[in-house]
Amino acid sequence: MQMGTPMRDLPLSKVYQLLEPGPVVLLTTAHKGRANVMAMSWHMMVEFEPPLVACVVSDANYSFAALRETKECVIAIPALKLAPKVVAIGNCSGREVEKFKAIGLTPVPAKRVSPPLIAECFANLECRVVDTRLVTKFNLFVLEVLKAWSDPTQKNPKTIHHHGHGRFTVDGEMIKLRSRMP
Amino acid sequence: MQMGTPMRDLPLSKVYQLLEPGPVVLLTTAHKGRANVMAMSWHMMVEFEPPLVACVVSDANYSFAALRETKECVIAIPALKLAPKVVAIGNCSGREVEKFKAIGLTPVPAKRVSPPLIAECFANLECRVVDTRLVTKFNLFVLEVLKAWSDPTQKNPKTIHHHGHGRFTVDGEMIKLRSRMP
Repeated sequence: MQMGTPMRDLPLSKVYQLLEPGPVVLLTTAHKGRANVMAMSWHMMVEFEPPLVACVVSDANYSFAALRETKECVIAIPALKLAPKVVAIGNCSGREVEKFKAIGLTPVPAKRVSPPLIAECFANLECRVVDTRLVTKFNLFVLEVLKAWSDPTQKNPKTIHHHGHGRFTVDGEMIKLRSRMP
Repeated sequence: MQMGTPMRDLPLSKVYQLLEPGPVVLLTTAHKGRANVMAMSWHMMVEFEPPLVACVVSDANYSFAALRETKECVIAIPALKLAPKVVAIGNCSGREVEKFKAIGLTPVPAKRVSPPLIAECFANLECRVVDTRLVTKFNLFVLEVLKAWSDPTQKNPKTIHHHGHGRFTVDGEMIKLRSRMP
């Protein structure tokens, strides 16, 4: 990380604990010298370690061509305080808008991929596309997380979960039950 | 639905609003005359309507063979009150346990598929497998939701979201932001 940000290494073995609960995430790409970002809820874990993640990026999205052609992206996870920016990101297209500047997000160079991290997010996952067999039919990409970062200054971040048409539930209480599952 | 349960038709166009927020769900299968159920967090929406859903069912799970061979399942969504049963489901295998009876869940015949609905869940989605190309490499199935049910007596159900090792966040407040997205 650069710019004096406080991001720390996050062990790849813990990535599933961030994505499995289904938060809205941001997906950054970089294509033809320009970074872009979209909001995304259609993602899931596929494997623990190395972490594999599947996601759907509609071919109607400006990010689709960037992801398919560069095979690189960053999944950045925003906490509740970024919710208005998340919706602003979803309400415009990279075709017309330089979103990082227009919306006020700080791009930070990643270590393993070209798309930027987002300084304001509490976690950032550098990813490359590892399977494209379901892209033509379903716009479904399989990604490998190469490097993960977390911001230790954001303690117990509450994430948001999309229910459609701008309605989001915010993380409530955490409960702990005796489970044998990872 | 049978048995006098209060389940109602749920429009297929609204299914994404249930799964997109990332709740822990239950997956029922039926194979060789026997129903089984597992807990699952690795799922995502793939298309709005007809609703397509991707999920990962590990080949270490007893449900894997049933899903691959019968190509049918039901995704049942439990609210917070079922959390102890959800964990109990995850803590044992259908190889050794008749889970519906042992854990105290009520199977209800589905309309379009052989696996049962779960009466205690606030929504049930009858599904068939429509793509298996990523099963061998990633245990990733693509499902089509054929029929959806909701229980109108469970108002504003709070779902649970798994963070690993038996830690779950419960849905908190709902916020509404002005979004152009579906």
